[in-house]
Amino acid sequence: MTLMNRRVTLKERPTGLAGPEHFAMDEQPVRAPAEGEVLIETLLLSVDPAMRVWISENPGYVEPVLPGEVMRAGGIGRVLESRSPTVRPGDLVQARLGWQTHTTLPGSVLQRLDPALGSALDWIGPLGGTALTAYFGILDVGAAKAGETVLVSAASGGVGQMAGQIAKLAGCRVVGTAGGPEKCAFVTRELGFDEAIDYKAEPDIKAAIRRTCPDGIDVYFDNVGGPTLDAALGAIRLRGRIAVCGRISQTATAEVYGIRNMGVLIGKRARIEGFLVFDYADRYDEARRWLSGHLKAGRLKQRLHVLDGLERAPEGLTMLFRGGNTGKLVVRVAKED
Amino acid sequence: MTLMNRRVTLKERPTGLAGPEHFAMDEQPVRAPAEGEVLIETLLLSVDPAMRVWISENPGYVEPVLPGEVMRAGGIGRVLESRSPTVRPGDLVQARLGWQTHTTLPGSVLQRLDPALGSALDWIGPLGGTALTAYFGILDVGAAKAGETVLVSAASGGVGQMAGQIAKLAGCRVVGTAGGPEKCAFVTRELGFDEAIDYKAEPDIKAAIRRTCPDGIDVYFDNVGGPTLDAALGAIRLRGRIAVCGRISQTATAEVYGIRNMGVLIGKRARIEGFLVFDYADRYDEARRWLSGHLKAGRLKQRLHVLDGLERAPEGLTMLFRGGNTGKLVVRVAKED
Repeated sequence: MTLMNRRVTLKERPTGLAGPEHFAMDEQPVRAPAEGEVLIETLLLSVDPAMRVWISENPGYVEPVLPGEVMRAGGIGRVLESRSPTVRPGDLVQARLGWQTHTTLPGSVLQRLDPALGSALDWIGPLGGTALTAYFGILDVGAAKAGETVLVSAASGGVGQMAGQIAKLAGCRVVGTAGGPEKCAFVTRELGFDEAIDYKAEPDIKAAIRRTCPDGIDVYFDNVGGPTLDAALGAIRLRGRIAVCGRISQTATAEVYGIRNMGVLIGKRARIEGFLVFDYADRYDEARRWLSGHLKAGRLKQRLHVLDGLERAPEGLTMLFRGGNTGKLVVRVAKED
Repeated sequence: MTLMNRRVTLKERPTGLAGPEHFAMDEQPVRAPAEGEVLIETLLLSVDPAMRVWISENPGYVEPVLPGEVMRAGGIGRVLESRSPTVRPGDLVQARLGWQTHTTLPGSVLQRLDPALGSALDWIGPLGGTALTAYFGILDVGAAKAGETVLVSAASGGVGQMAGQIAKLAGCRVVGTAGGPEKCAFVTRELGFDEAIDYKAEPDIKAAIRRTCPDGIDVYFDNVGGPTLDAALGAIRLRGRIAVCGRISQTATAEVYGIRNMGVLIGKRARIEGFLVFDYADRYDEARRWLSGHLKAGRLKQRLHVLDGLERAPEGLTMLFRGGNTGKLVVRVAKED
């Protein structure tokens, strides 16, 4: 019996929100690994805001996904067959597996995961790419120090959860923004944020920041861009830092919001800096040891929002931009055991 | 005969452009120096964009000038009488002298100038605060490196002239923006900029940057803010730096321009950072030695636009914001000898 690979390919580029109508499903026979290659069964796929950028015409920093191609996605898989000396059948690996049940890749692009540090769900969650993004954004780009006030937007999302907890572990006072009372309660009660701003209940974000950060903001971890970034700039303290990780409020809109508070940068000697986690690849081990230590000690957690079945991946992308998920969004393609 | 101090005081806060109608002139007897104080005769006063900010209601990083007070201004003076051990009659000093012919200040706030490094005109020009601002903005905040492309806005202005020449001395390719063919010819032919953009002749600044910086911008030295900052952001290269020194296009306008290109920061891992020269006070000597060396070797020059007479100072402020000056704007209150 031929092993079949179920795939989700890009049908056409969305102009606004991406959803099921922009993708197609098909099946193809799995390709047997050549010398140096590995056949992998997908277990978990990460759903991230950046994926909407990858299917736009000009993502800028990576090649766009072309119509007809399997949708690009990072994930965790299990090795079924290996002709590479670096991994063995049964190993857990991380790679750009894409939206498909099986993939055949060179062993050299796989990262073998240490099961002693965590399960597959840990590896896509609190040890995964979103956690690494939060780690370098807070500690390196934002350079958050004990006693400082840190604002994190999209605080209940994949990166936001980790960013806020990492800032707390660094000794900061942490305020998060999230949509709705349930998400706000989650970040304050379960994740230990000091305060939360429910941007749906309190649409005047300037006033909300003034209320929750009366002495201003030292570090703003920006996941959303737009008016929240503008308001954070307006409240920035002397030598404040803004680490720009994402801009989900601006990614799928036609009308881009114009930032008006740039003038404060001079008097405040403040900095706005964009970053991508890939640039820190040579420090992933350092970050993972730190994250794993806190994870095992119970000082760090990540809530995952799991969608079961590959066919739900496109709907996950819509959910992410509508704010329908609570926690980092993951598609479970196959069970770990 | 009593020595009289002619003064220009703030009459009322401007809402838009500042000009003669917002200031008043009067005369008061000069105050004799007390123990530790020094009586100074003003020679030269610097006219800088920041001064418009100082007479706004909330400058942010300094106290506002209040109506009735002498207008704040940095300048160079000559010591007439000294009861301070640090300076002697005849010495050249730099201080916040204000718009007045004479002032009595504690010796501790004066900076004694070394006549071996340059004349009073040198000290207000290529060794003065605008030159220091350019030095730290290009070499420290912008961290310009040999081979990089640097864009400088308001290139024929006080800071811009120096910023571009310093970037050239650092081995960069330098493009400047200026208003009108005369200013553009000045920065390319006299100051050695590689290219100039005449923003009056070529109002599509995005296209002008594409034409003159086809491979993008590594460092943008921002004196103007607004659409030029937005366009520079759109052309920023990987790990590009924007040093925000001023925003003259936005200082005296009611409608602030919204910056739309913030999204590029992420993919380009780019940085926008504001700065004030005062923060570098402990490195002024280093900068002045560097500037003086290049000045004496003929590798650095600064064109000054000199207005003669204290009474012309308010008109200088208007001229600065209308772009009427070519070169750093200075008011000559008295001759050096």
